[in-house]
Amino acid sequence: MKKDCIFCRINSGEIPSATIFENDEFRVMLDRFPATNGHILIIPKEHVEDIYELDPLVAARMFEFATRFASILKKTFGNEGLNILQNNGKVAGQTVFHYHLHLIPRYENDSVRIGWEANSQMTSEELEEFVDKIKSNM
Amino acid sequence: MKKDCIFCRINSGEIPSATIFENDEFRVMLDRFPATNGHILIIPKEHVEDIYELDPLVAARMFEFATRFASILKKTFGNEGLNILQNNGKVAGQTVFHYHLHLIPRYENDSVRIGWEANSQMTSEELEEFVDKIKSNM
Repeated sequence: MKKDCIFCRINSGEIPSATIFENDEFRVMLDRFPATNGHILIIPKEHVEDIYELDPLVAARMFEFATRFASILKKTFGNEGLNILQNNGKVAGQTVFHYHLHLIPRYENDSVRIGWEANSQMTSEELEEFVDKIKSNM
Repeated sequence: MKKDCIFCRINSGEIPSATIFENDEFRVMLDRFPATNGHILIIPKEHVEDIYELDPLVAARMFEFATRFASILKKTFGNEGLNILQNNGKVAGQTVFHYHLHLIPRYENDSVRIGWEANSQMTSEELEEFVDKIKSNM
């Protein structure tokens, strides 16, 4: 537990939460400032800052829950789409530095905007170079 | 395999890909039109359209890989942040209707924009109502 971490303080019960489900490892709760109706967060009970600190096997179990909750949300809110979003680092939009998954139900004309200017198509040579570079770090 | 699906055609070998890793279940490959340097996709070999069709246990194994590849990308590209993004439905920005995870390395001043107008804070009554609604569909 990290003293100044809001999600740790929720996990310890010090701050109330709108929890839908919890077990020894995770908490599934409503986002209090939702992007859209039904916006939920899945957080680990153990404090880890980001994906680089998270055990891949814990991540796996968390994503199994996320996949199950996708259907539960759709059944509940009748949303037309869904984004799963997980931000690491300030530059990526992370604001609470305790790992969390966003499940954001999507509706026509909601306010969520996700996009980028796609770079031009990579050449075969560039692709090969990148594949080799990544493989050398595996 | 779905005939008109570009990811199925990649999986069958009909269309070339910049594949970094594959096993019986998944392929990890570069996005040819990357948002940023090192933008990769993880796709299942079996055709499923979206999260609602994906076996949660397959999703779990896929996310274990995603978590491992987050560190590999950081080691390779020295990115300052990372977004994991998974879009379901046209309204959520899904453009290829074969389930896929985006891993998007983030850098200062890149072109990726992810945001929303946060709704005002939900009241305790609203939170309770939503928790109950979701629980009734679990």
